[in-house]
Amino acid sequence: MLAEHVLAAFRFALGEDRVFADGGTCALYASDETPKSVLPDAVLFPASHDDVVALMRIAHAHGVAITPRGAGSGNVGGALPAPGSVVVSFECMRRVLEFIPGDRLVVVEPGVVTEDIDRLARSAGLFYPPDPGSGAYSRIGGNLAMNAAGPRAVKYGVTRDWVLGLVAVTGSGETVRTGCRTTKGVTGLDLTRLLVGSEGTLALITEATLKLAPVPDTVATLRLCFASPRAALDAVGRVMQQPVLPSALEFMDARAIDAIRPTGAADDLAPGTRALLMVEADGAHEDVPRQIDALQAALAGEGLLEMRSGFERADIVRLWAARKSLSHAVKKIAPLKINEDVVVPVSRLADFVDFVDATAQSQHLPIVSFGHAGNGNLHVNLMVHPDDADEMARARAALDALMARVLALGGTLSGEHGIGTEKRRFVPMEIDAPTLEIMRAIKRVFDPRGLLNPGKLFPD
Amino acid sequence: MLAEHVLAAFRFALGEDRVFADGGTCALYASDETPKSVLPDAVLFPASHDDVVALMRIAHAHGVAITPRGAGSGNVGGALPAPGSVVVSFECMRRVLEFIPGDRLVVVEPGVVTEDIDRLARSAGLFYPPDPGSGAYSRIGGNLAMNAAGPRAVKYGVTRDWVLGLVAVTGSGETVRTGCRTTKGVTGLDLTRLLVGSEGTLALITEATLKLAPVPDTVATLRLCFASPRAALDAVGRVMQQPVLPSALEFMDARAIDAIRPTGAADDLAPGTRALLMVEADGAHEDVPRQIDALQAALAGEGLLEMRSGFERADIVRLWAARKSLSHAVKKIAPLKINEDVVVPVSRLADFVDFVDATAQSQHLPIVSFGHAGNGNLHVNLMVHPDDADEMARARAALDALMARVLALGGTLSGEHGIGTEKRRFVPMEIDAPTLEIMRAIKRVFDPRGLLNPGKLFPD
Repeated sequence: MLAEHVLAAFRFALGEDRVFADGGTCALYASDETPKSVLPDAVLFPASHDDVVALMRIAHAHGVAITPRGAGSGNVGGALPAPGSVVVSFECMRRVLEFIPGDRLVVVEPGVVTEDIDRLARSAGLFYPPDPGSGAYSRIGGNLAMNAAGPRAVKYGVTRDWVLGLVAVTGSGETVRTGCRTTKGVTGLDLTRLLVGSEGTLALITEATLKLAPVPDTVATLRLCFASPRAALDAVGRVMQQPVLPSALEFMDARAIDAIRPTGAADDLAPGTRALLMVEADGAHEDVPRQIDALQAALAGEGLLEMRSGFERADIVRLWAARKSLSHAVKKIAPLKINEDVVVPVSRLADFVDFVDATAQSQHLPIVSFGHAGNGNLHVNLMVHPDDADEMARARAALDALMARVLALGGTLSGEHGIGTEKRRFVPMEIDAPTLEIMRAIKRVFDPRGLLNPGKLFPD
Repeated sequence: MLAEHVLAAFRFALGEDRVFADGGTCALYASDETPKSVLPDAVLFPASHDDVVALMRIAHAHGVAITPRGAGSGNVGGALPAPGSVVVSFECMRRVLEFIPGDRLVVVEPGVVTEDIDRLARSAGLFYPPDPGSGAYSRIGGNLAMNAAGPRAVKYGVTRDWVLGLVAVTGSGETVRTGCRTTKGVTGLDLTRLLVGSEGTLALITEATLKLAPVPDTVATLRLCFASPRAALDAVGRVMQQPVLPSALEFMDARAIDAIRPTGAADDLAPGTRALLMVEADGAHEDVPRQIDALQAALAGEGLLEMRSGFERADIVRLWAARKSLSHAVKKIAPLKINEDVVVPVSRLADFVDFVDATAQSQHLPIVSFGHAGNGNLHVNLMVHPDDADEMARARAALDALMARVLALGGTLSGEHGIGTEKRRFVPMEIDAPTLEIMRAIKRVFDPRGLLNPGKLFPD
């Protein structure tokens, strides 16, 4: 339990109304999207960079662990409070500090909602490309911590690719200023990209300078029904070997389609559909039809049952209906979704999906797969009943087998969700001991007392 | 001087034919493109990752400083031997270890020539986008160390954006394996991008997994003559505020044009030309004419004297003649070129070029400016006589003023050349003390004895 004099120090530094230690508030900040819950000792709501410096100095002086938090929309436990820690919520730091369309940049505090940045950018003919599924409510600070991404990553890259510079507070309360405001810059070590994706273990980001892109004139969508996952993923391979980069290249496997059948969202799919691809192209009005032609040519092949295109908003929404209904439908299969987020080289996707199917059969588990196929990024969801010990043991065995196969295929454990608390045990399978030791030593540089988001990212 | 038993240890580990300590070899490796020269104590030519581990362990055990070297084509002293150091040349590590067009990746050793990677990629319809001016002879290891870039960066980004993973050897001889083989991956801290641009101060890169892109069908070029630098740079600003990204957007100022007049390369410029822009568009055959139309529309404006376009190879070469003749022509102005590589936000470029002109006048110095205007990256060349003490003092004063102005405008010291030995004194103007201390501490993590490229990147 947090000592009363430490709580008093936080109150003195931040103000009474920014420090909560009551059971109700602590309960509200006890969990993220993982099915776990740990009560923090208190919740702090800093309003400025200076507040963050002040609270971190107090935490450092008294050895108080800090769990930084955006919207709590992560699903790997990144914002799950470490036992005995104080949550630092960035909700109140939501100012846009600068917006300079002429230099295609915006400077924001970490509590700004991701889609609000995009909306602001669009007011000046620009956009913010990273589009995590949680973008309507996730905070940019959480996106930065986890290096969030979404469907547009296949064309536009991930959060890390859109960050020019950061201001952050280390575990000892020092301010670091990284990067620059220009699209090129090689002065000093690249701390900016080191902090992005470090899951709050190195420093608390208090300000981010983000790069923006000109908004494309228009978007068009293709929805393709295939007779098998392999046929669909072979088509993905063909798309990624020609020059037109789609702005989304999403895959749903047979179980995902089965999951949405009760909702009616699969009614307009071609009979016999066992895999679905959603493909988008964006760009200038004049270019998009030609891009769509090129993508259609690459996508056509054995096992393609039907291809529909949409160029108008209403048609596009209709085509996406099957994919958009998935998240909700999957939850009906079983009470608990163990949500993996693996990546394999695009050329190995079909082999990996076969392996997932074989594992689902051998372990008698429903496994629903879908994801960002153009990046080789597959969300593999094991649907289980947490009170069924035998099923949970099979799920664990299945996970171990899946992760081993991912790595054997030259893949990586996580494409966009991160490691958090949930995937730490797999990390040593991917990162060897000397490299992990370098990462731990860098952690000690930023956070000598080990106070920042303990129990995340690094394996025990 | 290197102790005989250390030399013997290197010879035993690498073989006699990979260790040279004779005056002739040492003289060949005493300099890079800076006008300086420091004799190393020996030159090592490792042939494999294991050789690099072996030599680094010996260096670590005996406290021998290492100066890593690609082609020595850098111009900030990055490969200039530290006094009493041993040069490690990666020339003999030039194997392509893997080339997988289906996954758009190539795995190379550091000694592969940059353009050879591009050539290999093109054999399969792909290309390697970073295009430093030295690409015909620079080694990819040097590009990685300095985070090299070139004209295409305005559309395609810099070296760092095309690296998926690395194998490297730390200052204590440990092997680190960073990153992944896929276009997404968030497992662990991002050591890959930390090592890129670290100028050989953290680890010796022995293997790099590089991302490739589909090669565009075609390229077209515009050459634009303007009545003033400000008119040209205003046009740059307009280009960067519309959606069509050019694949090059290069600027030459009035003094650069004056410099090429004696060569005849300026003969076909419009009368009264005081600034030149070179603009390229690349993409699909069908798209490029429309892109050129859009770029022309954005470029047109006050002060534009003439705009010529080229769609065929011969025309394109003719249009680039003025720009390509520049490097050679500039050298005739004075014996020494002090080559700065600053970046300012695109919206401040015209102000900065005005300041450069004012500085050139007040310090009575010829200053030739040209560069990658779409990134705000300007090569500012102070042409001086090194034996003229008064001129050198004025050059130093001019440099100090220029750097201060760059930073005041929100810019950065170097866009692509790096810091090396030559710009270290300016670093504390851009990076504050606590952030520099974090960088130094990270350096100690990788290189506890401070043996890797001492005297580079970090200020004293």
